[in-house]
Amino acid sequence: MRARVLIRPKAGILDPQGVAVERALPALGFAGVANVHVGRLVELDIEDSAQLESMCEKLLANPLVEDYEVELLQGSG
Amino acid sequence: MRARVLIRPKAGILDPQGVAVERALPALGFAGVANVHVGRLVELDIEDSAQLESMCEKLLANPLVEDYEVELLQGSG
Repeated sequence: MRARVLIRPKAGILDPQGVAVERALPALGFAGVANVHVGRLVELDIEDSAQLESMCEKLLANPLVEDYEVELLQGSG
Repeated sequence: MRARVLIRPKAGILDPQGVAVERALPALGFAGVANVHVGRLVELDIEDSAQLESMCEKLLANPLVEDYEVELLQGSG
């Protein structure tokens, strides 16, 4: 099945990319934007979705400073 | 409202992070994973969601080599 992993900086951990985007937007003429956070997106085909949490802990995310969220996009297996 | 932007390498564009993850997984004991792509995730609060496409084109994504997808998470405004 296709799976999507959303990886975000943990609350309270510095998010320099988010800060940079939030500061750059007004300079480009975009107003009314707040709480910008930049993370990573990993999408993959996986046979056994039970492996995903362990994959996130060991490779995809850094659990010390990042939270992750798994979404299954297709199928039930 | 809260919005989420998913940014991915365009099809056919080199995705070195995806290749690296796909190669690393078997070495860590994970089998049955294919078509790994790594992109970016931007989440933000925005007053006028009509600005999002322009923001993606001008700042968040590089439209030459990346595709983006906008998801609105809350509200209707």
